[in-house]
Amino acid sequence: MKALVIYSGGLDTTVCIPLLREEGYEQIYTVTVDVGQPLEDLRQAEERASVLGACHTTVDAKAAFAAEYCVPAIQFNADYFGYPLSTAIARPLIAKCAADVAKEHGPFDAVVHGCTGKGNDQFRIEYGLRLHLPGVPIRAPIREKNWTRSAEIEYAERVGAPIAQSKHKIWSIDENLWGRSIEGGALEDPATAPPEEIFQWTVAPTAAPNEPAEVEIGFEGGVPVQVDGEKLDPLALIQLCHHLAGQHGVGRIDIMEDRLIGLKVRENYECPAAVLLITAHQALESLILAPHERRFKALVDAEWARLVYEGLWGDPLFEDLSAFNQAVQQRVSGSVRLRLYKGSVTVLARSSPWALYSEADASFDDSSFEQSEMTGMVRTHGMSSLLYAELKRKFLGD
Amino acid sequence: MKALVIYSGGLDTTVCIPLLREEGYEQIYTVTVDVGQPLEDLRQAEERASVLGACHTTVDAKAAFAAEYCVPAIQFNADYFGYPLSTAIARPLIAKCAADVAKEHGPFDAVVHGCTGKGNDQFRIEYGLRLHLPGVPIRAPIREKNWTRSAEIEYAERVGAPIAQSKHKIWSIDENLWGRSIEGGALEDPATAPPEEIFQWTVAPTAAPNEPAEVEIGFEGGVPVQVDGEKLDPLALIQLCHHLAGQHGVGRIDIMEDRLIGLKVRENYECPAAVLLITAHQALESLILAPHERRFKALVDAEWARLVYEGLWGDPLFEDLSAFNQAVQQRVSGSVRLRLYKGSVTVLARSSPWALYSEADASFDDSSFEQSEMTGMVRTHGMSSLLYAELKRKFLGD
Amino acid sequence: MKALVIYSGGLDTTVCIPLLREEGYEQIYTVTVDVGQPLEDLRQAEERASVLGACHTTVDAKAAFAAEYCVPAIQFNADYFGYPLSTAIARPLIAKCAADVAKEHGPFDAVVHGCTGKGNDQFRIEYGLRLHLPGVPIRAPIREKNWTRSAEIEYAERVGAPIAQSKHKIWSIDENLWGRSIEGGALEDPATAPPEEIFQWTVAPTAAPNEPAEVEIGFEGGVPVQVDGEKLDPLALIQLCHHLAGQHGVGRIDIMEDRLIGLKVRENYECPAAVLLITAHQALESLILAPHERRFKALVDAEWARLVYEGLWGDPLFEDLSAFNQAVQQRVSGSVRLRLYKGSVTVLARSSPWALYSEADASFDDSSFEQSEMTGMVRTHGMSSLLYAELKRKFLGD
Amino acid sequence: MKALVIYSGGLDTTVCIPLLREEGYEQIYTVTVDVGQPLEDLRQAEERASVLGACHTTVDAKAAFAAEYCVPAIQFNADYFGYPLSTAIARPLIAKCAADVAKEHGPFDAVVHGCTGKGNDQFRIEYGLRLHLPGVPIRAPIREKNWTRSAEIEYAERVGAPIAQSKHKIWSIDENLWGRSIEGGALEDPATAPPEEIFQWTVAPTAAPNEPAEVEIGFEGGVPVQVDGEKLDPLALIQLCHHLAGQHGVGRIDIMEDRLIGLKVRENYECPAAVLLITAHQALESLILAPHERRFKALVDAEWARLVYEGLWGDPLFEDLSAFNQAVQQRVSGSVRLRLYKGSVTVLARSSPWALYSEADASFDDSSFEQSEMTGMVRTHGMSSLLYAELKRKFLGD
Repeated sequence: MKALVIYSGGLDTTVCIPLLREEGYEQIYTVTVDVGQPLEDLRQAEERASVLGACHTTVDAKAAFAAEYCVPAIQFNADYFGYPLSTAIARPLIAKCAADVAKEHGPFDAVVHGCTGKGNDQFRIEYGLRLHLPGVPIRAPIREKNWTRSAEIEYAERVGAPIAQSKHKIWSIDENLWGRSIEGGALEDPATAPPEEIFQWTVAPTAAPNEPAEVEIGFEGGVPVQVDGEKLDPLALIQLCHHLAGQHGVGRIDIMEDRLIGLKVRENYECPAAVLLITAHQALESLILAPHERRFKALVDAEWARLVYEGLWGDPLFEDLSAFNQAVQQRVSGSVRLRLYKGSVTVLARSSPWALYSEADASFDDSSFEQSEMTGMVRTHGMSSLLYAELKRKFLGD
Repeated sequence: MKALVIYSGGLDTTVCIPLLREEGYEQIYTVTVDVGQPLEDLRQAEERASVLGACHTTVDAKAAFAAEYCVPAIQFNADYFGYPLSTAIARPLIAKCAADVAKEHGPFDAVVHGCTGKGNDQFRIEYGLRLHLPGVPIRAPIREKNWTRSAEIEYAERVGAPIAQSKHKIWSIDENLWGRSIEGGALEDPATAPPEEIFQWTVAPTAAPNEPAEVEIGFEGGVPVQVDGEKLDPLALIQLCHHLAGQHGVGRIDIMEDRLIGLKVRENYECPAAVLLITAHQALESLILAPHERRFKALVDAEWARLVYEGLWGDPLFEDLSAFNQAVQQRVSGSVRLRLYKGSVTVLARSSPWALYSEADASFDDSSFEQSEMTGMVRTHGMSSLLYAELKRKFLGD
Repeated sequence: MKALVIYSGGLDTTVCIPLLREEGYEQIYTVTVDVGQPLEDLRQAEERASVLGACHTTVDAKAAFAAEYCVPAIQFNADYFGYPLSTAIARPLIAKCAADVAKEHGPFDAVVHGCTGKGNDQFRIEYGLRLHLPGVPIRAPIREKNWTRSAEIEYAERVGAPIAQSKHKIWSIDENLWGRSIEGGALEDPATAPPEEIFQWTVAPTAAPNEPAEVEIGFEGGVPVQVDGEKLDPLALIQLCHHLAGQHGVGRIDIMEDRLIGLKVRENYECPAAVLLITAHQALESLILAPHERRFKALVDAEWARLVYEGLWGDPLFEDLSAFNQAVQQRVSGSVRLRLYKGSVTVLARSSPWALYSEADASFDDSSFEQSEMTGMVRTHGMSSLLYAELKRKFLGD
Repeated sequence: MKALVIYSGGLDTTVCIPLLREEGYEQIYTVTVDVGQPLEDLRQAEERASVLGACHTTVDAKAAFAAEYCVPAIQFNADYFGYPLSTAIARPLIAKCAADVAKEHGPFDAVVHGCTGKGNDQFRIEYGLRLHLPGVPIRAPIREKNWTRSAEIEYAERVGAPIAQSKHKIWSIDENLWGRSIEGGALEDPATAPPEEIFQWTVAPTAAPNEPAEVEIGFEGGVPVQVDGEKLDPLALIQLCHHLAGQHGVGRIDIMEDRLIGLKVRENYECPAAVLLITAHQALESLILAPHERRFKALVDAEWARLVYEGLWGDPLFEDLSAFNQAVQQRVSGSVRLRLYKGSVTVLARSSPWALYSEADASFDDSSFEQSEMTGMVRTHGMSSLLYAELKRKFLGD
């Protein structure tokens, strides 16, 4: 029997390999999809796979991730109750890349992932696998065995699987280009302030430079294409923004999150590029979108965020919302100037050829607007509400 | 004939008085509603009213404003596309107080306001007057005459009305407890960064203390009642938060806003108390609200914001939304610790007896949750979406 | 060991009893909650329970069902994509009554229901049990054993359980005061028209009386209280409406429904009282609700329908929506006249003291409304949209 | 001076012509856009224009109206609180055709319409004119003069304008392919049942054939293309459906409507084709759309309806919603069989190659679905809600 393990090199996925061997899978393939996690993680995955006798592939998906996943996240102002969906948008791509490897090296008797039963990723990964690899059995050994972290470590030690020594890995961490999540340990108490040690991508605001930095982001058709006048492809641009924002302490997020199964958890994130780019994009949209459009797009954005949080990249509604947004984004061109300073990002200026803004119309010293004609609109404003008040006075008294 | 002028002491309302005299109003009453604007403004209004021979009343509405207008704004997380509705929530109260004065000193042949024809306040004020003073004629001389600022100044100079000398008052400003708005002049260009001089309530982030400050806000039933353990009534609490946040540069807002008539304008605000208190309240709600409730309350909040932006305080829907929110807020009790530092406010910790959070449930090391039972939920996740993908493959190929 | 079976007397719940005995439950209690299903069903349940040696209770919950479940369904215009939620609103009450019986006769080692794994009722019943009877184990034998209908019949025959003889029970039916659902068999093909034989509560429109009937429903505070001038309590009123509408062929519903697990099914319903009363209520609301309120209540109604479809009667959001609706319904008083004729119900007239309607205002021959003042509102209508069109012409040409 | 009058031949537009002459417009052009109103109306317009010395054009826009306006109305299931937007969707096309005539015969000093100040059409027509004919002055003489119907008749008689004799024209009527609206007179009282005489397109249900008729509508990509197997272009198809539905009394609508200015009015409509085609389309969508898509499209449809009701055909949001819907409609292909009988239309059957429906999945006798795996989903259902109940018990008691 032959299995493909979606492999991060961490504890959850490492223990799967000896476990699968015990079940009789002789041929084990592993695949790590590089969406911007640290190089040492990729190396560790390779090494451990080799130690465990698996046939390993690393897929460099960074450019695709930036262009096809992060850019839409910007265009939909990715926000699930404060979370810019950093882990969420990577899962569909990881599943897709794993499916490609499965097609190349397959057929496989099982595709295997390390997700547990309380989390969101089991939904995202399995949906992606069913979407791109219909009919291939999916295995989730940790969930199937109902293993806790301690149980996994015990098993790993027993079978001699290559894991980090300590049973006390304090934080559970996930990283990609778009963000870094930190959960577990002391953070499980919502009344505990996050300790400085959990952060790696952003400096503490108090340790950030004393001089504010200004940065100008240029957009074309909803895509960020320039930083301070320099043309960059999405990957390079996100990496640069990551660096710029991070060094000013911008991008730390500390929220209560409602997981897919209805469980409330406390999550910390570092998303410097996401926070900077979405702030800029939203400021540009506020200049360009018409009032009804702006209000309704907020609903569309929220719905997209919910779908993506649930991993349903490819749902019919996902496609429909994308068509809506393409219609919007084609004119989201222009530039936004922002200031980064000790943990905050502030919009200073925005301009666009498609601005629905007329300085003349907005001015207080415009006599072309015949103000007196507004009487009727003002008089009819709240008409039904006034009729209601009249009835209240009549029936209920003053 | 007898007129009551809702009087701020500024240019727009000052020129109304000689104008009304010219029209034959012999008796002119003026009323200024104190919702927290600067003392010198209140004094100026009194003095100018006296110079103009009007019978003046100042109504101290600060406590009512804090308790009955600012507190609901907190409970609905007041946010109209980035704007915490500071001017908007004061207008209904001003109209109501003016109506009370009109009932006391009336009858009047007209109630008069200084709003122009492009703005939002004409809608808010007149709706409020029609609500509380049905049948009394409303006059809006500036709008009726289609006067620009220059025309007003010219007229004032001609008739010797007491206004500030310069034709070049650069900024148009409105102030109350909940916020300060600054518009006009160079700010009319959205590509111009706001100059430091427009701010009066918040220090520049770069000039803020080098030491972060921590503050703890205690809530009971959705009402902020404590700051750092000290019990305070809404007015005193808001004033204290105003001070705390402002001295750390927290509360500056710079946005593009879509006015009621569909005009896009650039607005700057200083709302230190609002930003601090709404941030705290929202953090507490994120710990307490159930997932469906949290998602739907976001719609309720947005709808409330739209209604209040339009001045429809008292609309049937306004009452219904308030009933919804009372049901929510009764359990929004607990406390939130935040850090103020150089322009930003960060939630550090939140706790509540009503937290829908169980550390045991959320933990990674909980073996009471039978993970393996989740298989069915994961397998059916996106079921229809997968059927759709199958049809796409069938009809459109891979 | 002691088990309480929520018992309908049908196949699914009947086979549970011998099965539980095999597992070692010596004491088996059964409870049937009477929410208006046919008398013969209640008798059959009693008899079979007796044959199977169970200690049976029948709870008459009809009055509570009418007043506390059907009335809110009217007030929220119960509509889940065409379905008036007839089965859905009964489940929470059944669970609650079962919990009461369990408390009276308990403690029990298990509460048992007969739901299968594809349906909605498993979610509704179990949620209700967990809500009212926290900590008591819940068993769902059919789901646990993955039994199909054929497997159940085989088992029943083997152990001699009292079931209807045929393996070919064609339709799966559920009934209560508020509606009757029919599914399965030939109806599983959405392209097959429903055969006349599936209907029992409504005559075929072609067989309905040739003379239309008129009926007038009177409401007080959102509650239907009169039919043709006769005061009735909710139960009697619903029963009368059931009869009136059914004899004119009103209340047949044939829809595609998306179940909770994402499965699309074809459902047929007969809901004569629901269709008549909701039509009347909605007509009355259209006369009374203010425009913003009407639009937003549609969202509230849809959200309530979704929650109730999922069985979440008691969710925090459910309570909040109920508070919203209480605020609305207090003025939904008045009467609606309707015509019943050969399958359709038509609103003829509606009146209310709380009507937000003024014949004078609406009339074409009202000269008190100064039409000319509307110029400004018309001129600014779509202002931003026109600015957008101007930019399109500029950048993209005509 | 030269004016173009958008001319229906009715009272409101007829009196405009002598009025414009009095104001000094020597050259008067009239344009009637044929969107399916009765032939005698078109002839009357021609004749009266000739009598009044105007240069008249009739534009046949029926095919464009059917294909570009009625078809989208079907695809968005046009429904503004019960109204299929029949008059509303014609106004943008009328304005567009008038603008084309203005460009051909212009330049004009004014384009003139007959709308009054309380209605919706002033907004729709003027917006359309500003969109397609920016910069050309628009005149609305009836609104400007604040004329009531009586005042118009008096003036017409005085100047000898050709109008129908009676001052007592009872109903105000508007007609096009998609529907016929009737308002005014006795209908202004919402408690008066509509008299039979107001209907012209639909027979009384009691007078409809005793035999039901069945009809099958075929759709391709959201467009109705076949009736009972016969291929038809949109115009012919709508005309056929109009006839079929009308003769069975289908399409009568009697509602309370909230006009754009917030005024509640009672409206009656006859929309036989609209009711039949939208019912069919919606039934097809219910078979094809995925659950999330179906729920969200309901919001999109409602938003489209609001925009179209306001006449904002061409708003940025209108374009975005259209892009969304194109993504949906491309797979809305298949056919729907319906029964027409004595005033009602009933869906009997629907089928589509894109049905997200699997009879095997939905069946009760499917053992491939492992029911027992659903335990976890059922157990976690309403998890936060149960935690909430626990807190309530703890703090508030049972």
